[in-house]
Amino acid sequence: MWPDRRFVELVSIDLPIIQAPMAGANDSAMVVQVCSAGGLGSLPCAMLDADKVRSEILNIRKRTNQPFNLNFFCHTPTETDRDREKAWKQKLAVYYEESGLDITAPVSAVNREPFNEEMCELIEEYRPEVISFHFGLPNKALFGRVRATGCKILSSATTVEEARYLEEQGCDAIIAQGNEAGGHRGMFLSDNIASQPGTFSLVPQVADAVSVPVIAAGGISDARGIAAAFALGASAVQIGTAYLFTPESLISDLHRAALNADGNDETMLTNVFSGKPARGLVNRVMREVGPMSELAPAFPTAGGALAPLKAQAEATGSADFSSLWSGQSAKLCNEMGARELTRRLGETAVTRLEFLS
Amino acid sequence: MWPDRRFVELVSIDLPIIQAPMAGANDSAMVVQVCSAGGLGSLPCAMLDADKVRSEILNIRKRTNQPFNLNFFCHTPTETDRDREKAWKQKLAVYYEESGLDITAPVSAVNREPFNEEMCELIEEYRPEVISFHFGLPNKALFGRVRATGCKILSSATTVEEARYLEEQGCDAIIAQGNEAGGHRGMFLSDNIASQPGTFSLVPQVADAVSVPVIAAGGISDARGIAAAFALGASAVQIGTAYLFTPESLISDLHRAALNADGNDETMLTNVFSGKPARGLVNRVMREVGPMSELAPAFPTAGGALAPLKAQAEATGSADFSSLWSGQSAKLCNEMGARELTRRLGETAVTRLEFLS
Repeated sequence: MWPDRRFVELVSIDLPIIQAPMAGANDSAMVVQVCSAGGLGSLPCAMLDADKVRSEILNIRKRTNQPFNLNFFCHTPTETDRDREKAWKQKLAVYYEESGLDITAPVSAVNREPFNEEMCELIEEYRPEVISFHFGLPNKALFGRVRATGCKILSSATTVEEARYLEEQGCDAIIAQGNEAGGHRGMFLSDNIASQPGTFSLVPQVADAVSVPVIAAGGISDARGIAAAFALGASAVQIGTAYLFTPESLISDLHRAALNADGNDETMLTNVFSGKPARGLVNRVMREVGPMSELAPAFPTAGGALAPLKAQAEATGSADFSSLWSGQSAKLCNEMGARELTRRLGETAVTRLEFLS
Repeated sequence: MWPDRRFVELVSIDLPIIQAPMAGANDSAMVVQVCSAGGLGSLPCAMLDADKVRSEILNIRKRTNQPFNLNFFCHTPTETDRDREKAWKQKLAVYYEESGLDITAPVSAVNREPFNEEMCELIEEYRPEVISFHFGLPNKALFGRVRATGCKILSSATTVEEARYLEEQGCDAIIAQGNEAGGHRGMFLSDNIASQPGTFSLVPQVADAVSVPVIAAGGISDARGIAAAFALGASAVQIGTAYLFTPESLISDLHRAALNADGNDETMLTNVFSGKPARGLVNRVMREVGPMSELAPAFPTAGGALAPLKAQAEATGSADFSSLWSGQSAKLCNEMGARELTRRLGETAVTRLEFLS
C-alpha cells in the first residue's frame, strides 16, 4: 500500500502521516483524532508546564492506545539583552503611540522552555512511543535517558548538514523541513534562511545523505504532496497547515479567517514574533517591521513587547500584530475534522500513487 | 508510460522533459542532443543577435527534425539611471582598488535584448514548434504574430497570479518555476522573492488554477523529481542545472568546478550580476555586496560594472565575481552527455513511477 514502509513500521502506525506539533495551535484533542485515524498525532509541549503535559498524556492514553508523539523545543536560552530590548521597543514605539498603550509598562515573560530534566522524567514515567525535537537535540545526558525509554526519536533538519548531524547523534528518523513549511524553522546549525532548500530539493538530498527514514515536511497539504514525498525518497510526511483548518485547531478566529480569505496566499519567513524565523501569512507588523529584523530580541522573547499591541488589535478584530503561522500550501486545504482529514489524506494518497503507475 | 500525457502530446515529443534555456550556457549543440533523445531542447536567444539565432536554427534543423524551443526574454528595458550607476560603482570601488582596475573606465554595454520585431520575423520564417518567454510576454501585437505561426507558446510563472495571467493571455502551457530554480526568476507581476513559493507548493496550486498543462521547474535533477512533479499535477518538467554538467554546456571551467566541489551546495537568490534576482552558488561578491542589493542598476545593466572585476579574477582562477548559476539540486547531478542525460532521465523516471504504485 505504501511504496516505502520504513517509517510506518518504525513507529507501528497505519498511515505515513505525522500531524505536525503546533505549539499554541493544538492539544491532546487533535492528537487523539489523528491517532485514532491511523496517523501519528503530536502533542506540542514547548508552551506547557509539566503538570499540563502530564494531564494531556493521561487524556491521550485514556482515549487511544495508538502510538503518539510528544514534541519539545531544544533552543539554547539566552541572557536578556537590555539594549536590544530597548531598541526593539523603540522600533515598536510608533504602534504603542497609535494604540494609546504605555510603552514603559514591563514586558510580560514569554514561556517557551527548552526540553529539561522535568520533562525527561515525564517521558521516563509515561514512555510515549515517539519523541520529536525542534531546534536540534537536548544534551547527551538527556538524549540518552530519552533513548533508554525505548521511544523513537525524531528531529528536524533544514539542510543536508543538519540531517547528517541528527543521524550521527542517534535519531531514528529525520524530518526534512523544506523552506515551504509554516511556523518555526527547525534550523540549529544553519542560520541562513536565504540558502535553506525547498522541500523538493531537500528531501532527495537528505535521503541520499542518511540511512534512517526521512519524513518530508513543508508545503504538503493534500494527496498530491504525499505521493510526491514518496517519489522524492521520503517514507512519511509531516503535515501542519492542513490541521489548522480542523475544528480541533486552537487558533484564533482571526487566524482562521486569514487562512480562509480569498487570494490571501502570501507567506514570508519572519522573526518579529519570536526572534527566530517562522513562516506565516503576511500582515502589517511583518511588512512594516520585518519580515526579518535585526532588532528583534533573541528567541523566544521578541514577542513580549508585541503582546499588548496584539491583544488590543485582536480585541478590535485586527490581526495586524498576530502571528498567522501558515505554510505555503494553505490554499490546498479544506475544513474538516482532524480524524476525517487524516483518513482522507491516507485514502486519497493511495489513489494518487495508483494514478502514477 | 506517463501518467499525464498532455504536454508530450501538445508538442509531439516522447519524453516529458524540457531542457531549460540557459542564456550563455547552452547553444544549438545541446538542443540537438536533447531533441534527438526525445526531449525538448531549448535555444536561449536573449544574448544572441538575429544572425546568430538564424544560424543556430539552421544548425538545429540540419541535425534533427524533432520539435525544439526558442526562448526569449520579455523584460521592459529601462532608461539608464546615472545616479544609480554611480552609486553601484561606488559600492564596487573597493574591489576595483584591490584589483588595480580603473574605476573611471566606461562600463561596457550588457547585451540582453527583449523579444522584438526582428526576432518575431525569424519565428515567422522558420516556425519552430515551441516558443518560450521569460519575464512575462511580449506585447499583444508580437504575441499575436507568434501565435499565428502555429507554434506552442510557454512562459514562466513564479506565483499563482502570474500563472492565471499567462493562461488568460493565451499561453498553451505554463512553467511553474519554484523558488529552488537556478538562474533568473521569471517573475513579472510579483516582485517579492521572499514570498514566491517553492516548487512543492507552487505546482499543485498552479495546476488547480489553470486548465492548460503545467511544467514543473526548480529543484528537479533526477528521476525522483520527475516522478514527484507528476505526483504534484505537472505533465512535464523543465530541467536546467543537470544540463550544466554535460560537455555540451558552455559554462566556464570555474563554474563547472564550483558545481562539482564537495560540500558546495549553498545557493542564494542575488541581483548583483544582472539587476534581477537569480539563483546561483554563493561566492564572494554575493556575500559581500548582496545577495540582494538596492544599489544594483536595473536589469540587465548591473553586470556591466562587474565585468572588469570578473575578467581579472577569472584570469587568476577566481570565481569571486562570476555568476555561478545553479538551482538547489546540483548535488543530485552527474556528468554525462546531454543526449545520454535526457534518455536516462526518461528511463529512470519510468522506473521511479512504477516503484510508487
